[in-house]
Amino acid sequence: MATVRGFLHPKTATGRSSLIPSPPWHYSGDLLTVEYRTDPARVAELLPAPLSPAPDDPGAVALIWADWQSCSESGEELLDPVRAQYKECFAVVRCSFEGRTYSRCVHIWVDKDFAIARGLHQGYPKKLGSIHQTRPHPYGRAAPRIAAGGRFGATLAAADRRLAEAVVTLHEPSETNGFVNGHPMAHHRFLPSIEPGGAPALDELIESGASSFEAGPAWKGEADLRLFDSPTEELSRLAVEEPIAAYYRQVGVVWNGGRRLA
Amino acid sequence: MATVRGFLHPKTATGRSSLIPSPPWHYSGDLLTVEYRTDPARVAELLPAPLSPAPDDPGAVALIWADWQSCSESGEELLDPVRAQYKECFAVVRCSFEGRTYSRCVHIWVDKDFAIARGLHQGYPKKLGSIHQTRPHPYGRAAPRIAAGGRFGATLAAADRRLAEAVVTLHEPSETNGFVNGHPMAHHRFLPSIEPGGAPALDELIESGASSFEAGPAWKGEADLRLFDSPTEELSRLAVEEPIAAYYRQVGVVWNGGRRLA
Amino acid sequence: MATVRGFLHPKTATGRSSLIPSPPWHYSGDLLTVEYRTDPARVAELLPAPLSPAPDDPGAVALIWADWQSCSESGEELLDPVRAQYKECFAVVRCSFEGRTYSRCVHIWVDKDFAIARGLHQGYPKKLGSIHQTRPHPYGRAAPRIAAGGRFGATLAAADRRLAEAVVTLHEPSETNGFVNGHPMAHHRFLPSIEPGGAPALDELIESGASSFEAGPAWKGEADLRLFDSPTEELSRLAVEEPIAAYYRQVGVVWNGGRRLA
Amino acid sequence: MATVRGFLHPKTATGRSSLIPSPPWHYSGDLLTVEYRTDPARVAELLPAPLSPAPDDPGAVALIWADWQSCSESGEELLDPVRAQYKECFAVVRCSFEGRTYSRCVHIWVDKDFAIARGLHQGYPKKLGSIHQTRPHPYGRAAPRIAAGGRFGATLAAADRRLAEAVVTLHEPSETNGFVNGHPMAHHRFLPSIEPGGAPALDELIESGASSFEAGPAWKGEADLRLFDSPTEELSRLAVEEPIAAYYRQVGVVWNGGRRLA
Repeated sequence: MATVRGFLHPKTATGRSSLIPSPPWHYSGDLLTVEYRTDPARVAELLPAPLSPAPDDPGAVALIWADWQSCSESGEELLDPVRAQYKECFAVVRCSFEGRTYSRCVHIWVDKDFAIARGLHQGYPKKLGSIHQTRPHPYGRAAPRIAAGGRFGATLAAADRRLAEAVVTLHEPSETNGFVNGHPMAHHRFLPSIEPGGAPALDELIESGASSFEAGPAWKGEADLRLFDSPTEELSRLAVEEPIAAYYRQVGVVWNGGRRLA
Repeated sequence: MATVRGFLHPKTATGRSSLIPSPPWHYSGDLLTVEYRTDPARVAELLPAPLSPAPDDPGAVALIWADWQSCSESGEELLDPVRAQYKECFAVVRCSFEGRTYSRCVHIWVDKDFAIARGLHQGYPKKLGSIHQTRPHPYGRAAPRIAAGGRFGATLAAADRRLAEAVVTLHEPSETNGFVNGHPMAHHRFLPSIEPGGAPALDELIESGASSFEAGPAWKGEADLRLFDSPTEELSRLAVEEPIAAYYRQVGVVWNGGRRLA
Repeated sequence: MATVRGFLHPKTATGRSSLIPSPPWHYSGDLLTVEYRTDPARVAELLPAPLSPAPDDPGAVALIWADWQSCSESGEELLDPVRAQYKECFAVVRCSFEGRTYSRCVHIWVDKDFAIARGLHQGYPKKLGSIHQTRPHPYGRAAPRIAAGGRFGATLAAADRRLAEAVVTLHEPSETNGFVNGHPMAHHRFLPSIEPGGAPALDELIESGASSFEAGPAWKGEADLRLFDSPTEELSRLAVEEPIAAYYRQVGVVWNGGRRLA
Repeated sequence: MATVRGFLHPKTATGRSSLIPSPPWHYSGDLLTVEYRTDPARVAELLPAPLSPAPDDPGAVALIWADWQSCSESGEELLDPVRAQYKECFAVVRCSFEGRTYSRCVHIWVDKDFAIARGLHQGYPKKLGSIHQTRPHPYGRAAPRIAAGGRFGATLAAADRRLAEAVVTLHEPSETNGFVNGHPMAHHRFLPSIEPGGAPALDELIESGASSFEAGPAWKGEADLRLFDSPTEELSRLAVEEPIAAYYRQVGVVWNGGRRLA
């Protein structure tokens, strides 16, 4: 009998083909965060039992763009950067489970298959998209600095339709990088039965978060954010009712698993 | 308590955001198939228990390129074709389970996220790739006809590396479109535990196949096939030891679920 | 002294690197054409001297989607189809020069670099875009037939913004494939001086057209066409004031140079 | 008579559609440079009259990866970064004209259409490619620092084939960023006649270079560089015979036209 190896598919005799390696997974990148309030009913409708709305500020949303390099423990992906670089844009809300507040990603688009696969494991509901965010750079006039007055654009498209665009202007250093994405994540992992009408093959609630985190100074400012409709997307259903703030921060993160909640 | 809907993630109040709709799924497209024999040990090492090698011709492999349009029961994707069109290249072997012969996809690359998501459900171990195959066309000199002497090229790349290329020349009509991909598919669906070292969250063996099938005449010919190494892929481990034949066929297929085997 | 070869850049000792080979260029593909009338002033403003508006129906526009395979005289690109396949969407108007009516492409998007390069030679003002059109197929429910009732979608995006989308329904066979794109093309070829403020390095008016043409039956129907704004595109300035008709036709074309008009 | 505006095609009444705006063009980005010696005959064969090989070190080559943001004088592209960001990989040699030494780009791949268009103006022989280079980042383990021991990967692919890959390890600060790309550029701008066999419509030799330049400290190290064959590319013809050095530098550049040499 053969033994097949690999953290995920395709499993082979060597394990080398696996779309993603085993955690821990390392990330270095820049986060551009836009926080705002939407109608709390629009957040609540995305929280199936046993989750419930967060007790305070239940309509708060963070729409986050991230420009990442990532790698496994060996770091080998960094020397073949098509395997390490990806971008993502994701919407985070907060929820409550057994008296504790969690963050929860309700929409997310990435631009690489290994990022989709990590999302399967972590419970992020990933689709492919085209994501762009302005990069800071210390030289020349074709980039902002991470400093007061720095202006950053960020856009999201999927299936050849633009879904979101933001322009963020930085004003001052900040104690935080926002509060909506600041809790452990509570995510569902779900797969339907292969048999039509059967009970789900997988339906579990999990918790995870960074196992290690380092970061540069956070900067705070304001955002001009626009969301657009699409026949297959519902990001714009989380309409901006009241802006909160925008943030920029460079971070280094490690992710190394989580635990099952329900 | 909210009720969230959708066949797959992201689940929302309306279900409209689901990356894929519920089956049945309809497909219209062209299949270019290259069959050959590799070392049977290379096939056997990809067959975990309770699967075992097929009793006859256990080293047979089919490498198949497909150029698809696909849609749900409503057919709405066909009028926004970025949501309907995709291409794939996949390697199929045969195996045995409880005395019956199955086909099994051991490597597959596609170029859209909805195709990746359908693969999660169907147990195809999908990655993203760049797939091309020559299209037949009835007019002009920039396309072959599906006829004796017709020549078709097909290529596969992933992560900016070419993994396979074939040139197929058609010779004559054929009773079949090959034999390796002619059985019901036996696939694993697998997801690790979110807890490091935990038992898999999902690990099941399923069977599925077309619920409906129509096709034009099959054509048979010969292929010049080359497979290339890559640090993250093992298609070339299924080295060509003996060519069998190549085939071209236009098909219409419906897929509508399967059943659990183990 | 070295002799460098190649129809276009980069020129090398062998000529093998040229982005495009010498004409003749062969094309096999499907044309989806939507004809309508816009404000004639919007057409006239795109016609620099010595061109003038066409004497009859001066506001007629054809927006055309094309799904091509193309190759040089050797046909070698057809066996490496990433080098042969491309899609385009382009807007054509008519104009008059020295008493003769010409067609003129005023906006065009393609999805391959070799297509951009051929446009430089032919005077098509090409940009990159993402272009999709429904493909006909004889089997299954995931494709229309080229027949009465056949419905085809077509979309255009650039820089992550959707610029146009059409749904065409075929009604009946047609004598023609439309009239706007039916004349020889009158195009400018232009390159600024490398010296700021200098006279253009190249500014000429050329004529070209197919040197050979074959086609299947044309089908006629109606279109629902929508054009969208973008900060960097002006296709929507050619607003639909009155629909004319829509067409579908499979064609084979040869292009082999033209002549200078002015 | 209409007046059409725009620095390049498509020209319109407003000029807003032009694929590129007028210079000056601003760039902020990171350069990874690998210098080596090839057979001087391979360089000489790429230098048509009136150019001749550089008098000293005539086989020197720089293969350069660049990760850019770029914008026009208004800077508006920076807030819609899909219009500002691009990557490129290019091969530079040196040549002599009228007793002066010039740099000359002999092969170049970029990943955006606006970069192709700027290349038309500047005489860079651009094709589309897929280009990746490791990014430095100050936090986390998924990025090198620009410092001794920093390791950077860089890859180039076109038409689904990998053409080049390099791994650079930094050793020490450097006075220079290499010498091969340090001169004004001498480039040809060429377009064939629209008439088969006619004299070229454009064939001129131009000079240009940065009108303004700022940069961080240069770092020097060593490279492991591999070049791969392709049916349509000749980069590998500039085979590595002797490594010179590798460099990393962050720069800000302005380009604002040049002058005609011949």
